Amino acid sequence: MNSNLLSPAADLTVERCPALKPKPDPASLLFGKQFTDHMLTVNWSEKGGWQAPQIKPFQNLSLHPAASALHYSIEVRPARSVTSVNAFRGADNRIRLFRPMLNMERMHRSAERSCLPDFDKVELLECIKKLIEVDREWVPYSTDASLYIRPTFIGTEPSLGVARAGHALIFVIVGPVGPYFTTGAFNPVSLLADPSYVRAWRGGVGSYKMGGNYGPTIAVQQEAIRQGCQQVLWLYGDQEEITEVGTMNLFIYWTTKSGEKELVTPPLDGIILPGVTRQSLLDLAREWGEFRVTERTIAMKELLDALADGRVLEVFGAGTACVVCPVGSLLYQGKTYQIPTMQNGPDLAKRFHTELTDIQYGRTLRDWAPLVV
Amino acid sequence: MNSNLLSPAADLTVERCPALKPKPDPASLLFGKQFTDHMLTVNWSEKGGWQAPQIKPFQNLSLHPAASALHYSIEVRPARSVTSVNAFRGADNRIRLFRPMLNMERMHRSAERSCLPDFDKVELLECIKKLIEVDREWVPYSTDASLYIRPTFIGTEPSLGVARAGHALIFVIVGPVGPYFTTGAFNPVSLLADPSYVRAWRGGVGSYKMGGNYGPTIAVQQEAIRQGCQQVLWLYGDQEEITEVGTMNLFIYWTTKSGEKELVTPPLDGIILPGVTRQSLLDLAREWGEFRVTERTIAMKELLDALADGRVLEVFGAGTACVVCPVGSLLYQGKTYQIPTMQNGPDLAKRFHTELTDIQYGRTLRDWAPLVV
Repeated sequence: MNSNLLSPAADLTVERCPALKPKPDPASLLFGKQFTDHMLTVNWSEKGGWQAPQIKPFQNLSLHPAASALHYSIEVRPARSVTSVNAFRGADNRIRLFRPMLNMERMHRSAERSCLPDFDKVELLECIKKLIEVDREWVPYSTDASLYIRPTFIGTEPSLGVARAGHALIFVIVGPVGPYFTTGAFNPVSLLADPSYVRAWRGGVGSYKMGGNYGPTIAVQQEAIRQGCQQVLWLYGDQEEITEVGTMNLFIYWTTKSGEKELVTPPLDGIILPGVTRQSLLDLAREWGEFRVTERTIAMKELLDALADGRVLEVFGAGTACVVCPVGSLLYQGKTYQIPTMQNGPDLAKRFHTELTDIQYGRTLRDWAPLVV
Repeated sequence: MNSNLLSPAADLTVERCPALKPKPDPASLLFGKQFTDHMLTVNWSEKGGWQAPQIKPFQNLSLHPAASALHYSIEVRPARSVTSVNAFRGADNRIRLFRPMLNMERMHRSAERSCLPDFDKVELLECIKKLIEVDREWVPYSTDASLYIRPTFIGTEPSLGVARAGHALIFVIVGPVGPYFTTGAFNPVSLLADPSYVRAWRGGVGSYKMGGNYGPTIAVQQEAIRQGCQQVLWLYGDQEEITEVGTMNLFIYWTTKSGEKELVTPPLDGIILPGVTRQSLLDLAREWGEFRVTERTIAMKELLDALADGRVLEVFGAGTACVVCPVGSLLYQGKTYQIPTMQNGPDLAKRFHTELTDIQYGRTLRDWAPLVV
């Protein structure tokens, strides 16, 4: 027992699965439905501190029916709801993660907001690397697929008072995934923009990776599909600020009224999830220095005006699953607006996609993608 | 299997615990920490529909680690976070529930908003009554204590996509509880009113009983305690509307500027949880017809003005656990405002408390409190 996560090198125990499952064909992968042979668990209690991390055969969790995660959503995850850290097998057959410390830091920050115990980010990442090493044959031999990693941190306090959890559990499950959008990475998506649905609000927890941000979106996503759209564009407030798209951050590449090329995305003002892909696109674009890069609030009306003026070049979502996802149209107040993302290449979206996947699959070497094995 | 919950009379199975736990002393009960010998579970799957309800020994749940409840807060409960339906043992030794169908209806509505499957409210209530009957010796022999009932409905889909759950579980656990507030029912509480923390927002799910509404409040409650207060008064929007207090609805009893006595509480406009106690106080006050009863938006400034004018008579929270909970002071923008609730009796709060507990414990017979046994 220890107040921080113990060093995995010293204390992590590995119980190997006696019989391994067959690996699925990378071409037939469905998101989030297949899992590997092992999982990582780390238990914490107020009295005992952190226990030694365990890698063990993938199995059901045994939870007290009063466990706080089942009643009050005391749960955090380090990445966006439909995605997380991924491990990629490169052309060189080495396995890489993508900016995993950014995910660990977000998980740590969300845990703090949920009153879950402090943990050592570096040690947890070491444990996760060890899990990937044990299940390394599950990392697809494909540069269209990857191994999805879902670290989850839950309160397991067996008591119904709404209070800080005295027991908690980090568990990490991993599974192979193909591209997330069934329409394919470069088929554009259509969005429903209805200001009556609000994803997050100032003073709330929209910028944290907390389970409660996701459950309520399912009914809204179903409404989007009912209206013939594929995703939801989340608006906020009297100005109908553009915030996120589905479970992705949103980027607009346009020509400003003064004739300047600009890439713009909403700022991290408390209602936006700080996506790792979002950060990476901003970092790359600023390194290139070829156009203006701006984080600022964007009102729906500004986008509609720019569309009417023919100033919009590309609109795309950014997230771990798809890297970038072009937006082709927008349904707003009963009217469908076409967005010329595909007609414009989409040159910028494609460039981001190539740059990021080159780093992920080891075609471009960069410290954003540390080696696992 | 069936598309709706099966009739419990026909299909409910009971597996009794071979060894019963000792019952705790009603005087020493801590909220939500002790549970009875049995629990109720009802499983649902898209393919098989609802399975026969089971009463079985209280035991851990075995959940797939990808279960949607652990990742996306697909979970609802029929009552406020710190409270729920209770069963009361009356002076006549009969056991009663309090307006349980209002709870079932709210659970049903919240389930719908969470894309959880439809269920038969009447049949579920029958199953819950059967559970209380099996564990009836756990209903405290005391008119200060009761048996707390926590029905929980969770998605158990073993897949990580953010989507409607194809597997779900209703489970009900029950346990004896004493008065919720350790300060005692008629010790006034102090509130922190800080507009930088927002509980719920228009366009969101604040009016639903969803787990994600509770986890984020724990850190704010801790901040209240750090500042010497006991509960949080949740404000909303530019007008700093008064919404809820802790996990209770809020009532103000005052003299209006025109000299009329009025009981006022925020309206059910999407950001307020429709509490069963809230509804009951409104129903009683309207039956009495002795003062104006108003559901309307109240700005913080109105309350401060009324305090300055000496027009405030009583401020109290209303919830299942405490029935009514007097408010004695308010910390707002660094200044503490005294509220004369206790100096005024509090006559109205006491009257509500007496009327409601008389119904709950069978001293006044009313169809609000149906018999279990």
